Amino acid sequence: MRILSGIQPSGTLHIGNYFGAMKPAIELQEKGETFLFIADYHSLTTQPDAKDLRERVLNVAVDFLACGIDPEKTVFFRQSDIPEVTELTWILSTSTSTGLLERCHSYKDKVANGFTPNNGLFSYPVLMASDILMYHADLVPVGKDQKQHLEVTRDIAKSFNFRYKKEVFKMPKEQIQEHVALIPGTDGQKMSKSYNNTIEIFGGKKAIRKKFMKIETDSKGIEEAKDPDNCNIFNLYKFFATAEEQAELAAKYRAENIGFGYGHAKQELFEKMWDYFAPMREKREELLHNLDYVESILQKGAERARFEAEKTMETVRKVVGLR
Amino acid sequence: MRILSGIQPSGTLHIGNYFGAMKPAIELQEKGETFLFIADYHSLTTQPDAKDLRERVLNVAVDFLACGIDPEKTVFFRQSDIPEVTELTWILSTSTSTGLLERCHSYKDKVANGFTPNNGLFSYPVLMASDILMYHADLVPVGKDQKQHLEVTRDIAKSFNFRYKKEVFKMPKEQIQEHVALIPGTDGQKMSKSYNNTIEIFGGKKAIRKKFMKIETDSKGIEEAKDPDNCNIFNLYKFFATAEEQAELAAKYRAENIGFGYGHAKQELFEKMWDYFAPMREKREELLHNLDYVESILQKGAERARFEAEKTMETVRKVVGLR
Repeated sequence: MRILSGIQPSGTLHIGNYFGAMKPAIELQEKGETFLFIADYHSLTTQPDAKDLRERVLNVAVDFLACGIDPEKTVFFRQSDIPEVTELTWILSTSTSTGLLERCHSYKDKVANGFTPNNGLFSYPVLMASDILMYHADLVPVGKDQKQHLEVTRDIAKSFNFRYKKEVFKMPKEQIQEHVALIPGTDGQKMSKSYNNTIEIFGGKKAIRKKFMKIETDSKGIEEAKDPDNCNIFNLYKFFATAEEQAELAAKYRAENIGFGYGHAKQELFEKMWDYFAPMREKREELLHNLDYVESILQKGAERARFEAEKTMETVRKVVGLR
Repeated sequence: MRILSGIQPSGTLHIGNYFGAMKPAIELQEKGETFLFIADYHSLTTQPDAKDLRERVLNVAVDFLACGIDPEKTVFFRQSDIPEVTELTWILSTSTSTGLLERCHSYKDKVANGFTPNNGLFSYPVLMASDILMYHADLVPVGKDQKQHLEVTRDIAKSFNFRYKKEVFKMPKEQIQEHVALIPGTDGQKMSKSYNNTIEIFGGKKAIRKKFMKIETDSKGIEEAKDPDNCNIFNLYKFFATAEEQAELAAKYRAENIGFGYGHAKQELFEKMWDYFAPMREKREELLHNLDYVESILQKGAERARFEAEKTMETVRKVVGLR
């Protein structure tokens, strides 16, 4: 079974990204033959600054490798290292009705949210279909908001196969991550850059501790009993601590007159998190001092992906009547 | 000055194509550095049969070479041999507002004429802009109906240059062929496949003579005086004959009682046309027996075009933030 995931290089890694998207993506490599790519062509649709984009791509590569992507298990590559995907996008676009694209929520939402409705944004699902169909993926793990794009992918594949009377593309299935844990930000809402409530994973110890200290709580004093189940600190603690450790901390929450305040809870959470990511932090430092190695991993991934892409394009070009 | 033309591989060459499009395109090679490509990626937007498309591409290559394209003077190539153009199309699409494309007459016309509104048809002007901007063309000779697409090309180039604060693309100018001679078909309307009134240039002598015999005339008998200026036969004769020869034929038209009927005029026209295309017919036969040579010409053209394309893409990728 081949599993394909694309990730947008969207900025500094925070706890929400990690548990919501990165960790599940990394775990896929134990479940099948995994292709994971950094979707820089897609990123262009939101018109980033060039320098910024390049940095984010490198960062996300470093972060994924630091956090556990094993290049022996996962074909890890940069989307734009396989420009064949844009050729397939053009070819598929001639089998894609504009009506299909006009009905995509994601496009409508982005436009409603103030993005300039550029043709790249409009054609976004065709490039996505091209990524998926190029590598003949069986399974594409996506969030609920991307379900429609998988439907569009199958529509495009069907319409291409029908038009050329040949089963060139297989139908990919989505795997909807229904039970994504909600990772609370410092204000208790879903942790997200757009809410300005994130806690970054990598960076100076002082700056990161400071973020923890900003977690919002009620105003209970250090001698009062507290409710762990409705506390943002405790909810985050669950992601890092064993059941035993959680029970221990919960007991301190519920006790009275032990001189345990939210400040202490934050410190415990911070230390737990700091230790949790310690091996990844170390790996990351190594990688940052060896960017040539990171690039060589991406190049090896690209080579493997290109091998697949060339096979697909040979068939496609023949089937549509190009040389 | 660099001149760029694209031609759609649209079928069997007829007299109307030749004088209306092919001859002017061939003459360009005396006027500047000419790039001429067979637009097979664009052809996909009207969903041709694959075998048919491949044959048409080869045919148009043979025809152009037979009729005078000099590969030493013209960079003559197949669009899809430079897939970089689809990568540039994707990148430009992120700088192209969808509103701009929605306003294109050509798209609206095609949809009104019953073409499925596919995303390739919608994005047609972006691929065209990509062709033009890729090779930094100064001048693009087009029919009036394509004027808007050149405006769109400039809009896209401007918006890209503005967004990335760099004059990556120069502004191409269109050269509108205002005074394209109207080449009458067998019924006197503009010669066009869609009117089913064409006279093909290459083919069996008998079949082609038969087409000439179908030219519509009034019913004047062989002894009556006739009006050359309002005769479809005479109007076609003008394209092949010298002024002297035209005057001679006109005299026969105007004379009475000389036993000269429309059948004779058709025969004279046919012979003139047959002689006119004789060297091209001969060249074409040669080429058809040496298709490897034709392919090698296209490959040489592609090599030259790719050299330009790679330079452009190196700049573009750098400017937008790809590796």
